[in-house]
Amino acid sequence: MFKVNDNYLKLPGSYLFSTIGRKVREYKAANPEKEVISLGIGDVTQPLAPAIIEALHGAVDEMADAATFKGYAPDLGYEFLRNAIAKNDYADRGCEIAADEIFVSDGAKCDSGNIQEIFSIENKIAVCDPVYPVYVDTNAMAGRTGTYHTATGMWSDVIYMPCTAENHFTPELPKETPDIIYLCFPNNPTGATITKDQLQVWVDYANKVGAVIIYDAAYEAYISEENVPHSIYECVGARTCAIELKSFSKNAGFTGTRLGYTVVPKDLKSGDVMLHSLWARRHGTKYNGAPYIIQKAGEAVYSEAGKEQLKAQVGYYMNNAKTIKEGLQSMGYTVSGGVNAPYIWLKTPEKMTSWEFFDLLLEKANVVGTPGSGFGPSGEGYFRLTAFGTYENTVAALERIRNL
Amino acid sequence: MFKVNDNYLKLPGSYLFSTIGRKVREYKAANPEKEVISLGIGDVTQPLAPAIIEALHGAVDEMADAATFKGYAPDLGYEFLRNAIAKNDYADRGCEIAADEIFVSDGAKCDSGNIQEIFSIENKIAVCDPVYPVYVDTNAMAGRTGTYHTATGMWSDVIYMPCTAENHFTPELPKETPDIIYLCFPNNPTGATITKDQLQVWVDYANKVGAVIIYDAAYEAYISEENVPHSIYECVGARTCAIELKSFSKNAGFTGTRLGYTVVPKDLKSGDVMLHSLWARRHGTKYNGAPYIIQKAGEAVYSEAGKEQLKAQVGYYMNNAKTIKEGLQSMGYTVSGGVNAPYIWLKTPEKMTSWEFFDLLLEKANVVGTPGSGFGPSGEGYFRLTAFGTYENTVAALERIRNL
Repeated sequence: MFKVNDNYLKLPGSYLFSTIGRKVREYKAANPEKEVISLGIGDVTQPLAPAIIEALHGAVDEMADAATFKGYAPDLGYEFLRNAIAKNDYADRGCEIAADEIFVSDGAKCDSGNIQEIFSIENKIAVCDPVYPVYVDTNAMAGRTGTYHTATGMWSDVIYMPCTAENHFTPELPKETPDIIYLCFPNNPTGATITKDQLQVWVDYANKVGAVIIYDAAYEAYISEENVPHSIYECVGARTCAIELKSFSKNAGFTGTRLGYTVVPKDLKSGDVMLHSLWARRHGTKYNGAPYIIQKAGEAVYSEAGKEQLKAQVGYYMNNAKTIKEGLQSMGYTVSGGVNAPYIWLKTPEKMTSWEFFDLLLEKANVVGTPGSGFGPSGEGYFRLTAFGTYENTVAALERIRNL
Repeated sequence: MFKVNDNYLKLPGSYLFSTIGRKVREYKAANPEKEVISLGIGDVTQPLAPAIIEALHGAVDEMADAATFKGYAPDLGYEFLRNAIAKNDYADRGCEIAADEIFVSDGAKCDSGNIQEIFSIENKIAVCDPVYPVYVDTNAMAGRTGTYHTATGMWSDVIYMPCTAENHFTPELPKETPDIIYLCFPNNPTGATITKDQLQVWVDYANKVGAVIIYDAAYEAYISEENVPHSIYECVGARTCAIELKSFSKNAGFTGTRLGYTVVPKDLKSGDVMLHSLWARRHGTKYNGAPYIIQKAGEAVYSEAGKEQLKAQVGYYMNNAKTIKEGLQSMGYTVSGGVNAPYIWLKTPEKMTSWEFFDLLLEKANVVGTPGSGFGPSGEGYFRLTAFGTYENTVAALERIRNL
């Protein structure tokens, strides 16, 4: 008689964004006349840039001709894309990452969920609190997080690193020594970031205690300030302790196009076992590559035209971020983020819980945001708005919030 | 100090097709003047059908316009695609599968590797021997297969069901009761198939002992004979015991385009836990959907024009299969498969091992095939050729084998 993986049964509720999606669908069904504006899930709204569209059409044409048709992709991804990544995202920033240390995938969500597989089930993870829920949820599904306490919203075997107003939403080194440390900067959900010097402290700590840092740099393109690292490999010693996850979703609008990559340096070892070999084995056995035409679209992100068009696209969203931040501040909200990240993190008014404020916003302003408590217990009392709407909707949403 | 998942370290060698790829690359590097023909990895060579190309271009144009741009896809996949699947692959064949029991993915390889995650680590798997290596490898990586014995090429905790010439490459019910049974028909690698009556025996058995059947129907489009089921849901009772995996790789040439789906009926339960809920949770948490433009391409597979064009494409490959089978038979080889499947399974001559024959073919005929032993111990002494080459290369490869 088969049995299920009962770690799944320990998970509280459904995946955060699935829950929000359901609530919004139900509200719309009950109120078909209402026009709901979503600044909730971090989904982009601007069309793909012309250089990317051109690359996609070109690649589709290649698939129509036997002479240029492409079947299975190379295990790690096409070299043309890995070379473009190695040059633009690493070499040009002074980081030493080779093309064969880059694994192309269908997005950072999958990679951030799958990467834990190559580690022992006995390893203890440390996460920022609040944090993108995929890190904890996927470790819970693997059985690495112990038991869930509903009262505290915490797992018994996870080291939580609170990111609160007191520490400017930047975690302190944990008291208990972790084996795997998830860091995401610019941060989802708080929009906070970390300086290069601060990140160096984490790299030195990881090397000292023998921990691995899983560094999620999905929002790197939104960094506007100096001395904020675009990659953890800007720090000395990161090649022996860090894996980096990158996404094309937010810098190039690929949320529905699906492309990302993971860097596993060959210097990152446990004894004489290279994590690179394990991830290569997983990639080869459980994955079959991103579509050729999507990898060609990824290459276009690094073309001169692509870079210019995407700089404008990021600028568009960051103008939204500024609009939200300043608008909320003018209404008296306590707000952070939005400078190096497309997320605005606000304190709910009048000590409302995050979900109370979610319901208020949905029902009274017809605006969807994301409850901070969905990202972890220290997110309670906070709320995330994203800059990924259209400018018109962003302005309209703010006006509705002002009239609450 | 972090530790790795040491189940990975128990795996013998690299993923089969990665090994073959490396051997071929090395041979080509050492013999740049040789023109190697691959009938090895099951990769297609014919371009995407015109109806699919048209759908891709159309979807790319949608992504260029804010009014039709698509971000994150629905968790299970777009309804237009799931409805097309439910109608064409199920309702039209008299199978009762609803659109919301279909989970769209980026291919059957990923799904066949990931599906084991929703089951207990204590469950015992049964596999055909020989078999597509992903089933066993991914269970080994999860720690479900015990220890590997190099001498026998077998894992201690796997139930092997030999498929040999004696049983016409169709497995018998296992003596030891399994929890999870992997079946793949038409079969990779043997090209053998199973009748509807024979499959009904497995469904009845699974319902009786409380096992789940993971039914890989990736090669269903190649069925040419009557009374061979296209789906396990043609059998009575399959909704309470079977998960089905389907691919667009072989019926529509999507090996480099990446699309597949998994069916988990809501009647499939462990106690009161629906496997559908667990797979939905995995899909929502660890996956972010196939690209919109690829899902539109998938929809075109079910259009009238698409169906007609793909019937011709499958016919093209099946003519190759016939050519290979009859050619080898005329040379005195013992051959099976190739009638309801794009794979030809041949006995190596003069009691050569599978890898000896691989090397001979590569070095003397410059033809790449797949060693039968790579699919399991009962594959030793066998060899797989695929019908997915061009007709010209298929004929040329046979001529070279004839001249060995």
